[in-house]
This record gives sequence, structure tokens and C-alpha cells, in this order.
Amino acid sequence: MGAMGDGEIAPIPGGITAARGVRAAGVHCGIKRQALDLALVASERPASVAVTCTTNQVAAAPILVCRRRLTAGRFAALVANSGNANACTGEGGLADAERMGELAAAVLGVPAEEVYVASTGVIGARLPMGKVEAGIRDAAARLSPEGGGEAAAAIMTTDTRVKEAAWEVRMPEGTFRVGGMAKGSGMIAPEMATMLAFVATDLSVPVPLLRRALQEAVAGTFNCITVDGDTSTNDMVLAFANGRAEIPAAAPASPALAAFERALREVCGELARMIVADGEGATKVVEVLVRGARSPAEARRVCLRIGNSPLVKTAFFGQDSNWGRIMAALGSAGVPVDPARVAIAVGDVSIVRGGVGLGAEAERAANERMRQRSFSVTVDLGLGEAECRIWTTDFTEAYVRINAAYRS
Amino acid sequence: MGAMGDGEIAPIPGGITAARGVRAAGVHCGIKRQALDLALVASERPASVAVTCTTNQVAAAPILVCRRRLTAGRFAALVANSGNANACTGEGGLADAERMGELAAAVLGVPAEEVYVASTGVIGARLPMGKVEAGIRDAAARLSPEGGGEAAAAIMTTDTRVKEAAWEVRMPEGTFRVGGMAKGSGMIAPEMATMLAFVATDLSVPVPLLRRALQEAVAGTFNCITVDGDTSTNDMVLAFANGRAEIPAAAPASPALAAFERALREVCGELARMIVADGEGATKVVEVLVRGARSPAEARRVCLRIGNSPLVKTAFFGQDSNWGRIMAALGSAGVPVDPARVAIAVGDVSIVRGGVGLGAEAERAANERMRQRSFSVTVDLGLGEAECRIWTTDFTEAYVRINAAYRS
Repeated sequence: MGAMGDGEIAPIPGGITAARGVRAAGVHCGIKRQALDLALVASERPASVAVTCTTNQVAAAPILVCRRRLTAGRFAALVANSGNANACTGEGGLADAERMGELAAAVLGVPAEEVYVASTGVIGARLPMGKVEAGIRDAAARLSPEGGGEAAAAIMTTDTRVKEAAWEVRMPEGTFRVGGMAKGSGMIAPEMATMLAFVATDLSVPVPLLRRALQEAVAGTFNCITVDGDTSTNDMVLAFANGRAEIPAAAPASPALAAFERALREVCGELARMIVADGEGATKVVEVLVRGARSPAEARRVCLRIGNSPLVKTAFFGQDSNWGRIMAALGSAGVPVDPARVAIAVGDVSIVRGGVGLGAEAERAANERMRQRSFSVTVDLGLGEAECRIWTTDFTEAYVRINAAYRS
Repeated sequence: MGAMGDGEIAPIPGGITAARGVRAAGVHCGIKRQALDLALVASERPASVAVTCTTNQVAAAPILVCRRRLTAGRFAALVANSGNANACTGEGGLADAERMGELAAAVLGVPAEEVYVASTGVIGARLPMGKVEAGIRDAAARLSPEGGGEAAAAIMTTDTRVKEAAWEVRMPEGTFRVGGMAKGSGMIAPEMATMLAFVATDLSVPVPLLRRALQEAVAGTFNCITVDGDTSTNDMVLAFANGRAEIPAAAPASPALAAFERALREVCGELARMIVADGEGATKVVEVLVRGARSPAEARRVCLRIGNSPLVKTAFFGQDSNWGRIMAALGSAGVPVDPARVAIAVGDVSIVRGGVGLGAEAERAANERMRQRSFSVTVDLGLGEAECRIWTTDFTEAYVRINAAYRS
């Protein structure tokens, strides 16, 4: 709950259609054998939009299409499919992505430039456009203010759970809502596991303010579960704001903007943690906190180095406070460190001080903490004031099984 | 076989004691529960020496001791233990490493400054110095020109096979030999799995020439199975040359030096490939060749990005020519690429041209190649003339099992 002054904020049920004036649907069109595989989200009035997307130089066709849209900054609808990433599909794939947008635009009676497109799934296969076209028609006919859940289900790939979050903000002038959905579960190699998130608000937020708010929210949430600058071919986070709440638009430095930024961060944070918790084959969610770094950038490098180390992550799986692997990881992060200043704790149990282990008793207590499904690892570099926090998972045999068999 | 002019070169049986004037032994001193855990290697006459070692800032105590030795450039003996890395052990651990060298020096009657020390195993525990001392005495009593094999066995940790290689060079003036041993098997996270290699030659090679030859050999062999600049706390490659062959010393630009460099590269290459083949839980050895890069450095970055991607490596395990994961990896290597110029082949089967897949038939043929224990993946970036080749493994459930349980 926030202070009353700048908007009381609380979680509410639902996902993207928790925002008023948003309808959604999820259908099975046949890209996958059985499951829902096509989602449509439509705003009942033109909305402002902001997108952050992959920095991978091998960007998928829908990413290229969305980038073309961004200059206009207006959003009418989103069409997203799972089961096929439409990546590495050449000019033909690009035409398919454009066509996907055009088909949705035609069915909904909106300009094609305001329809965004996303895809996730196998790379390198062309979309079955006949099925996609039929799916878009079916989805348009099903659009509903209660359709958020099935839309969220339709963007899943190896996800085992639907990921939705929504918050409501109470302002003196009335309420507004922020709701969203996400997919993603390949947390071992986050740089290459597609992550999609779509967030809607019924507040009116001008494009420049929406862009800044989204960037800031992503930096502290989705980018804390992924490797900086190393993203999949299809990663995308999109936010749109349709003003349907009919309270005054967010203005620079206004209480509404501040409250919106907080609600957006909450929604993105919840969705990000859901992605980690649904990591492929994961049995643990681990918060890695690096403090005492000389700069935030250095803290982040060390944090990611530890959080992405297969040896550290297999030790998490083994419930083994093998801090030697953490020391080896932080020593190879490409950041100056002084081993003799390093302290490490699991939860509140110190296991290393001055770069040296505190003994078998401490390790046993730490192993005890690691039996929980969720725990934290804190590393103090002892060099400065900067810190960084990320969420990661353990690394399990099930991960290998899932990824070895994914296409077969 | 090389051309006669610069020395005929051929593999011979044995390892480090294939070089004349080298004795070795491996004993069980009790650091491990059962297996051999302490190796001693002695040169019957003072030798020149060169070492390349870890760039990890958390360097283990034996690494610090070896660095102190290097200014002298003289070698009498090496003492190495497995089961305990003597890393992150503070001042006490450093004293232990010095003491290990002093004990060996006293028993052998050589200067302590000429005794090198290496350790591998668990990080963060102090060495049981009483056991180490007894082990050094036992090993000294067992030293033998046939002891190379047991010394190689005594440095193993998760290795499943002893790793030895030796080559003989026939010169007009006589023959000389190069023999070595290595340990290492954590190829999934090569940056943190200790790799030790020790190579002896009975040629006389002055220190500066030996250093350069070792650097060049390591660059094309051990450094092609590991991540540049990202090494474990304990990695070390040491070469010594004792002149026992009694043929003229290698001189700059001499045929003997050229032949020695080739033989050293062969020995290091064999040992490096043995390490890959013994990768923890590995079922495949994969050669990743990146060509058509703008520079060797860019080729290497892309090569390592592909060869270290968990998603690519699980696809190797699944015998699935999932080239989309290779495209995603090369797009995020931090090197400019043009997807539309990329070609990919598995063995001699093209699966991608112009950044686009060549269809199900080609993929089936590629999957067929991937059923073999060993195959190659070639990526042509289509941007230049530079190339890089590395060896990697697949990523298996057994890897996770081994590393989750390693300490318990």
C-alpha cells in the first residue's frame, strides 16, 4: 500500500484486461498441436504505446515490424502467437509478420500501423499463415474484457504456469489500473530464452512519459532476471495506455505519474519473479545481492556472473553452500576485486569473511537455508557503496531434459 | 609425421616421464578417501621452465607461489595434489603452499625456489599438511622413470580417464622427446573448472624460447577449449626443459626449435582434446569452426559464444540440429553480424544459407551426423577472412548430477 498522497495502490485479480477498455482472447489455431497458440489484445480506444525489445542482432521479423510502428506511438491492438518465433525466416517471414498485423487490423477495423505483432517458439520455420489468419478471425470474435487469462495462456511455450498481474491505484479523482501478462521460463540461459510481457493501463499517459516509465520499470525488474544486452531474437516488453479511466492524464511530476510508475514497477516485478519461479526445471528461486561494489555497473557484472554460473547454479540444486564456486565466479567477472575483503552469506548465515570460509558449522547452517524453495545469497565485495540484486534459479537435470527434447 | 628437414616427429607411448631425465610418482596420502591424491615430478638436472596460469583474480595459493618462482626460471621438481584446491585459504593457505614446496625440496635435496606447486579440488578448505608431508616422502621414495602414469592419475578430480601424451622428434643429431599429463573435465563451465597440464622435454630450451613456445601452444590448444580470460582459481600449464637429450640446445630460428614447437603443440593439443572428451557427463565432442569473420578476435568471440551456450549444448545432447539457437547465440556475441549472410553446416550438411533454414530434409541429414560421438559445426559469417576453431561438449543431465553432488 502506498501513502495516500500520491495514490493508494493495491493488487487486484486478473491480468491485461484488468485495465478498463481492454479486451483479449486466446485461441488454438493449429501452430501448436493442441494448446492455445494465438492471442489478440485490443484497446477500445487508440492508446499511447512504448516498447523495449531485444538487442540481439538476429532480431525476429515481428520485432522488426514493431520497430517500424514505434515512430507513430499509437496502439490499437496486439496479435501474438506461440509455437513459432518467426525468426531467421528472411524476407518471407518479414512479410508474414506484416501480414499478421494487417489481418488483425482488417478484422478489427483499425489502422495496420497501430497493430503490434509478437511471436515466440521455434526459430527458423515459416508461420502457417492460413492457420494464423483463421486464428485471428476466431480470436476477434471471442474478444472480451474477461479474456486476459486465455490470452496469457496462448503466449506460453515451455511455461508451466500462466503469468498475470494487476494493480489498482486510487487517486482523489478516481481509480486507474495497470494489468499485464508475460511468458518466459528459460532462466538458465536467459540471454536466449524469449521473454514477452504486455502491460495495459487505463490511465492516460503521453508517449514520452510512458517510454521513460517503462524503461525504468524494465531496468529494475525484467532486466534483473536477464543478461544485460544479451537477449533472445524475440524479446519484447510492450506497454499501452488508453485513458479509459477518464481521470486527468499523467503529467510530468504529477502524483498520477508517480503512482503509475509504482504500479507499473509492481506489475513488471511480479511478472518477472513469476518467470524466474517458472524457470525451466527450476526447483529454487534465488535472490543474488551484491553489495560493497565500486559502481552499480560493477555490482551488476558480478551479480550476473554469479547468477549465471552453471557451477554455482548446480550447487543451488544440490543445496550445497559451495562458496568456493561463488568466489571463483566473482573473481572472473572482469571487475577488480580483492578476495581478502569478500564476505558471503546465505540468508542470514555468514559463510565467508575476509575471503576465507567460516567453517563446517556455518556451512551446515547455510545448507539448511538452501533447503527452502526460495533463499538469498549476499556477497559483499567490501570496496564501495554500490549494489545490485537479481533473481535466478538453480540448474537441474530437468532443465537439460526439457531443452534437449524441446523440438523433438 | 613432419618433413625430414626440420625433424621427423611421431607419437610415442607414455606421458611426462617419456622425456628422459624425468622421474615421477603418484601416491595416496589421505586428502581423498581412497584414490591417488599426490603427484611428484622431478628432473634429474636443473631445467628451464615456463608457466601460464589463471587470470582469475581469486588466484589459489599454489598459483601465487609459482608466480614468485618464475623470475628465476629454473625447475627442479613439481609437487601437485588433488582433492583440495588450497584456494580461498588466506595467509595460512599461502604458508601451506610454500611449505609443500619446501618439504619436497628438502626430501629431494634441491632449492625450494626451484620446486613448483599445484593443487586442485575443493575450494576453501586448508590442506591436511601432516598427510601432505607423509605423501611427499612416500612419493619421493617411489620416484621412477616409469612413474608418469601414476602421477597423471594422482592429479585427477572428476576426470574419468588418465590424460597423457608424448611425441618423439628425430633430428640429424639425435632424438628428443616431449611428454605431458593433464587433468580437467568440467567443460560446461570451462571458466571455472580447474585445468592443470605439465609438460617435460629433454631438449635444452632457453627460458625465453620456452616461454614463447608455451604461450603459442596454449593459445591454439588449451585456450581453444576455455573462455578467454575467464579461468579457474587454480589453472596452470607448466613446461620444463632439462637438456638430458644431449643434443644442441634449441636456438632462435633453429630446426630444433621449430620441431620442438610442433611437438609441444601436438602434446598440448592431444591433452586438450582429452579434456574435452572427458567433459563432465559429456556424450559428444563438437568442433565449432567460425569462419568469414572480420578479425580473429571476433571469430573467437562468436566461437566461444556458440560453444558455451547451454541451449546450443543441450541441443547437441538431443542430437537436434536446432540452428535457431546457434543464430541466437551468434547474434548476441557482441560482434557485428549480418544475419542475411550467415551460413551454417553440421559436418558437410548445410542447414542454413543466407540466414534462412534449408528445410526439414537438410535438418534430418544434420541430425544423422549428430548421432556420432564427434562432429563439427561450421558457421560462416560472410563478412571477412578470419576464423577460429574450438572444441566443446554437449550438455547433459549427467553434468548436473555430477556438479550438484560434487562435495556431498
